[in-house]
Amino acid sequence: MSKPKLRIGLIGSGFMGKAHAFGFASAPRVFDLPFELELRTLADITEQSAANAATAFGFARSTADWRSLIDDPEIDVVDITAPNALHKQMAMAAIEAGKHVYCEKPLAPLTADAREMADAAEAAGVKTQVGFNYLCNPMLTLAREMIAGGELGEIRGYRGIHCEDYMADAHGAFTFRHDPAGGGALADIGSHALATAEFLCGPITRVMGDCVTMIAERPDGKGGRRKVEVDDVGRAFLRFANGATGSVEGNWIATGRKMQHDFEVYGTKGALSFSQEHFNVLHFYSTADAKGRQGFRRIEASPDHAPYGLFCVAPGHQLGFNDLKAIEVAGYVNAIAGKAPEPFNFRQGLRIQTLVETIQNSAREGGWMTVA
Amino acid sequence: MSKPKLRIGLIGSGFMGKAHAFGFASAPRVFDLPFELELRTLADITEQSAANAATAFGFARSTADWRSLIDDPEIDVVDITAPNALHKQMAMAAIEAGKHVYCEKPLAPLTADAREMADAAEAAGVKTQVGFNYLCNPMLTLAREMIAGGELGEIRGYRGIHCEDYMADAHGAFTFRHDPAGGGALADIGSHALATAEFLCGPITRVMGDCVTMIAERPDGKGGRRKVEVDDVGRAFLRFANGATGSVEGNWIATGRKMQHDFEVYGTKGALSFSQEHFNVLHFYSTADAKGRQGFRRIEASPDHAPYGLFCVAPGHQLGFNDLKAIEVAGYVNAIAGKAPEPFNFRQGLRIQTLVETIQNSAREGGWMTVA
Amino acid sequence: MSKPKLRIGLIGSGFMGKAHAFGFASAPRVFDLPFELELRTLADITEQSAANAATAFGFARSTADWRSLIDDPEIDVVDITAPNALHKQMAMAAIEAGKHVYCEKPLAPLTADAREMADAAEAAGVKTQVGFNYLCNPMLTLAREMIAGGELGEIRGYRGIHCEDYMADAHGAFTFRHDPAGGGALADIGSHALATAEFLCGPITRVMGDCVTMIAERPDGKGGRRKVEVDDVGRAFLRFANGATGSVEGNWIATGRKMQHDFEVYGTKGALSFSQEHFNVLHFYSTADAKGRQGFRRIEASPDHAPYGLFCVAPGHQLGFNDLKAIEVAGYVNAIAGKAPEPFNFRQGLRIQTLVETIQNSAREGGWMTVA
Amino acid sequence: MSKPKLRIGLIGSGFMGKAHAFGFASAPRVFDLPFELELRTLADITEQSAANAATAFGFARSTADWRSLIDDPEIDVVDITAPNALHKQMAMAAIEAGKHVYCEKPLAPLTADAREMADAAEAAGVKTQVGFNYLCNPMLTLAREMIAGGELGEIRGYRGIHCEDYMADAHGAFTFRHDPAGGGALADIGSHALATAEFLCGPITRVMGDCVTMIAERPDGKGGRRKVEVDDVGRAFLRFANGATGSVEGNWIATGRKMQHDFEVYGTKGALSFSQEHFNVLHFYSTADAKGRQGFRRIEASPDHAPYGLFCVAPGHQLGFNDLKAIEVAGYVNAIAGKAPEPFNFRQGLRIQTLVETIQNSAREGGWMTVA
Repeated sequence: MSKPKLRIGLIGSGFMGKAHAFGFASAPRVFDLPFELELRTLADITEQSAANAATAFGFARSTADWRSLIDDPEIDVVDITAPNALHKQMAMAAIEAGKHVYCEKPLAPLTADAREMADAAEAAGVKTQVGFNYLCNPMLTLAREMIAGGELGEIRGYRGIHCEDYMADAHGAFTFRHDPAGGGALADIGSHALATAEFLCGPITRVMGDCVTMIAERPDGKGGRRKVEVDDVGRAFLRFANGATGSVEGNWIATGRKMQHDFEVYGTKGALSFSQEHFNVLHFYSTADAKGRQGFRRIEASPDHAPYGLFCVAPGHQLGFNDLKAIEVAGYVNAIAGKAPEPFNFRQGLRIQTLVETIQNSAREGGWMTVA
Repeated sequence: MSKPKLRIGLIGSGFMGKAHAFGFASAPRVFDLPFELELRTLADITEQSAANAATAFGFARSTADWRSLIDDPEIDVVDITAPNALHKQMAMAAIEAGKHVYCEKPLAPLTADAREMADAAEAAGVKTQVGFNYLCNPMLTLAREMIAGGELGEIRGYRGIHCEDYMADAHGAFTFRHDPAGGGALADIGSHALATAEFLCGPITRVMGDCVTMIAERPDGKGGRRKVEVDDVGRAFLRFANGATGSVEGNWIATGRKMQHDFEVYGTKGALSFSQEHFNVLHFYSTADAKGRQGFRRIEASPDHAPYGLFCVAPGHQLGFNDLKAIEVAGYVNAIAGKAPEPFNFRQGLRIQTLVETIQNSAREGGWMTVA
Repeated sequence: MSKPKLRIGLIGSGFMGKAHAFGFASAPRVFDLPFELELRTLADITEQSAANAATAFGFARSTADWRSLIDDPEIDVVDITAPNALHKQMAMAAIEAGKHVYCEKPLAPLTADAREMADAAEAAGVKTQVGFNYLCNPMLTLAREMIAGGELGEIRGYRGIHCEDYMADAHGAFTFRHDPAGGGALADIGSHALATAEFLCGPITRVMGDCVTMIAERPDGKGGRRKVEVDDVGRAFLRFANGATGSVEGNWIATGRKMQHDFEVYGTKGALSFSQEHFNVLHFYSTADAKGRQGFRRIEASPDHAPYGLFCVAPGHQLGFNDLKAIEVAGYVNAIAGKAPEPFNFRQGLRIQTLVETIQNSAREGGWMTVA
Repeated sequence: MSKPKLRIGLIGSGFMGKAHAFGFASAPRVFDLPFELELRTLADITEQSAANAATAFGFARSTADWRSLIDDPEIDVVDITAPNALHKQMAMAAIEAGKHVYCEKPLAPLTADAREMADAAEAAGVKTQVGFNYLCNPMLTLAREMIAGGELGEIRGYRGIHCEDYMADAHGAFTFRHDPAGGGALADIGSHALATAEFLCGPITRVMGDCVTMIAERPDGKGGRRKVEVDDVGRAFLRFANGATGSVEGNWIATGRKMQHDFEVYGTKGALSFSQEHFNVLHFYSTADAKGRQGFRRIEASPDHAPYGLFCVAPGHQLGFNDLKAIEVAGYVNAIAGKAPEPFNFRQGLRIQTLVETIQNSAREGGWMTVA
């Protein structure tokens, strides 16, 4: 009995385009999906780059015209990994065409745009997904379940960071990520820290932001220099609806750090500590452990932590970054089939944009702000 | 311009069968392979299990008759992940049929059998591969290059272990892994420690073994108990051709350890330290560092360490266990195309069996033995 | 040739009194001090407790009257480890009596009092010392030298925390540390994070504070409950005079954390990472390391890092907490002899109080404040 | 009420002489000892060096004649930290003079000598102590108690190492440690690994040794070169009386390692992992932890782990190497007062020598040997 097909059109073939392609290739090997995934068309900037990527990623066709991909009646899901500035235009066209839309983060640089997208998707009744990979980690699912299940007691404190150094070199050229309309470290990676914070501890209600541009100008690639207006470091104090307080930092000039997406969460009965630098491990402290035997436990990912066991039946073997994308794809495909809620839809993507923008505004104003 | 096809038949659908399926799915997404991989047939014990696995793993056909798979003229590569005791029979048939053969480790429980297989493959001129996944890690390649390039100076000492706890429970039933003909911790996982030792430091010339059965009998699954004759712990002192000395330990009753495939290697100018529990990291100590600034450096896997960059353009994101299998597949496919030497062929698989058997014999005799 | 004597009177025999006693006992064994230390008198609340502590700590005499200790003409140094609320009264009396004064932190709960003390000491020309132990760690001295010597390039970012859990239990009784006049987590341990921040990166010029009381009331020890007005968590965003930005957190309800006095500092050429949980180690990342060989180096304390070698001629053996107190004592004794500047005098103690108070005020006002 | 005096004479002022001096200074500050310690005389090679050390270490008198120290009727304890070759001569003289004897390890290079010393001490009824510092760590006491109390179930496996790099430089001169009569890495530091193994798991009954000289000759300090006959690396397989098996390694050419005195012990119900590089921490895995919540717990030294609390009332502050010596001194002083058994007397020191010598003999013979 063969499964119905879910026909996918992918726009973009960069870092994230490739990660999505991995996800589409791996997810059906790992999960018993309700659809057979058909990689129908890949769109990129030129015919050549699109053709090359289609071959590499296993898509049947290619095009330099993303609009034709969206208009293709034989495509069910439009997957957008194009530059941020194009997300809205593409997503709105896809929604209008009645497609399900999978969009890399950020949903859109401006909150107003992201809201329009979320509203349109809901009105059209299509299923959406925004790519917050790190949330797909079984150890983060474990952390959330432990918190929700009361293993930490009442949550009091949270500290989250996402620090990397890919912008630490002041000689690095101005890119689209430095674009005033919504770029910056807080939006680019601080957004991950915010997503994890709410994933674990629930809604953030108030923020006090601190956004700093440390590298004031960068080579413009044409022999001149261009002023940078986005933040290199974005920090915030946080208030959560559950009564906890905390902080986050997004920093893309953190020399030496490659993937420091870390958090600690402190409750009345226990605590968790996590680092994405070693993301198959979750550290757990329980005040219920015997006197003199208390300490942070190094829990290694294992088949006890779904869906790890679908990837590997033995503990400690470790998932990789691309495996997280397979989990993301599987969750989305199940949502399209109506078997599960959307894991992280446009409404949730908008939520992160709202948090980012509120923190940026708070930083500009120099005072606390309520998150809308 | 389409690529020629390489048609694959997979025998077995367990832990390793699934890992191979991941490798076949991922490798073409990551690498620009000289062949298009066609997943033609999957053979398993029953028609039903074969059919289910074929669907799950993306194979076009299925069969309960592995001999028909081997005889199929439209299959180029026979991939054997069946129980160890069947490896020889299947591999010899496949070689006779002129197929390339990809075989999970151990090549065969007995050295004599493994030798027959290696000899037959070479005589037939087919390309072979044995699955020593851990060697496919870019950080192990880095370690080997650093040693070969003299960054550690002359190698003096080595300490390797592979400890897990999957047999630590004395109530666990007797399985094929406890079979007297070649099983045991040294063969099952100590073999990985030996493969890594030679991968890094070159040939081992003499060994002194220590093989111990700690759990003397196990439930036989029929209400009775069965005597265990294989080792639960296998240790060895080592002499290398390069003058270094060292030790290894394979231990499957190491309570709490899930994937402790670790090593330290000491040279006159530096040292390396590694743990598979965090396998995207290699620790490097250099005596050339400035006084007061020396220390083990925590090098994180990055695009500087090929082929990591093909999986992910950003450092620190981490490969997973299944990605290692994709690297293994890619290396083998390139070897079949004549573009590279076989990464780890039957001759090398035989080598590991020879080491294991020599250590077992040494342990039995209670004295040092020269490795043939 | 015997050394002149430096006669010491110690007030208090609690946690810090004992730590000071260790310092006095060890410092002369480790360092070639300009004075012989004579432990003359120990004052405590009762005659009995004073007598017991004098015996245990090696003091010749004891008294329940701290004023007589201060008035004793045969005492050169008055060492105050009494409760915070008494620091000012005792220190002012000692200064008036012309004594050198060694005072545990905080110098005084209120900045105005601390300023009075610093002014008085300078006017009297006596040497003073405030006990910020963690700064006495050779690895922090190393970190400061590396930063000052340009090994990290220009400093851009700083993140410091001091988290413990000694107040995490809401059933724990109200103590002097919960006293409204200056107590709280920020003052008690956040002060250490601030001291380390300025020790490494120089003056902090502006702050934005966030101070939170999470446990609103505590048992008053008399069967009732008492409202807590001090912070359980104190956070701040920071601006440094050198252009860097950063953050600190002091948190005494951080379940599971016992001594998390950690920092990361990011420069244009390198970075440092440190944790007091493993305080004989400093992690150093240098962008000058070869491509593919970069990573945080785990530098272990050794005789290369003075004064470690005076404690132990071999690297890696590790100093303990009480050894830091011996270093503090030695630095102070050398300052009294005029051989070195005061390591951390009342003026510097005042500085920390000023930072704490400015952060508290900023938190109350909800906006940035300039540090006076 | 004043305590009786225990009058100490120290021979030697090197690394270990200084460590002992720290112990004598600190122990009375930390512990309520049954004696007042009087540091009476320090003997060293020359009058000058003895006088300098006496001043530095707080001894009242000094001498270049160690025999006069031993003959001094006002000395109760003779503490020997002179070169190994002199231990026997000095200890025998002290025993004959009726003194208690505290001797640095190794008790004597040759087992026969060590036995003579142990026999003589017992015949004379004096109290003895050999300096195996690492055993004085509260976390090792904890480990022993956990094992003895059954928290790990039956012990099955042990792996101990003591690796440093102080002899890794082949240009380093020949020293007394390279002396054929009993020196070498196994005797010098492998002995610590053996002491810890028996401290935790009880008697070792059989051994198979592997002793290797990697640096065949060294500068003799007179312009020539001298052949080295002692081992640079000493390894052994072990059998314990309790049925467990294991291994140890002593290695003084382990480039990069400064204090890698590590062990892992595996039982049927749990496991422990420890590294002296971070010796205030013990890692504990319990199979009794809930499914999906199992992992090695990082237990930090705290007042729950006596005698840590006597040094510091707060957890996580950490003891240093010299503090271990204070614990050693306190244990010995209590034994002299008859309040406790000798913590590690000459008979136990002999035991370690016996183990070392049996391993060396086994290595020479190339076969297993029973420990006498």
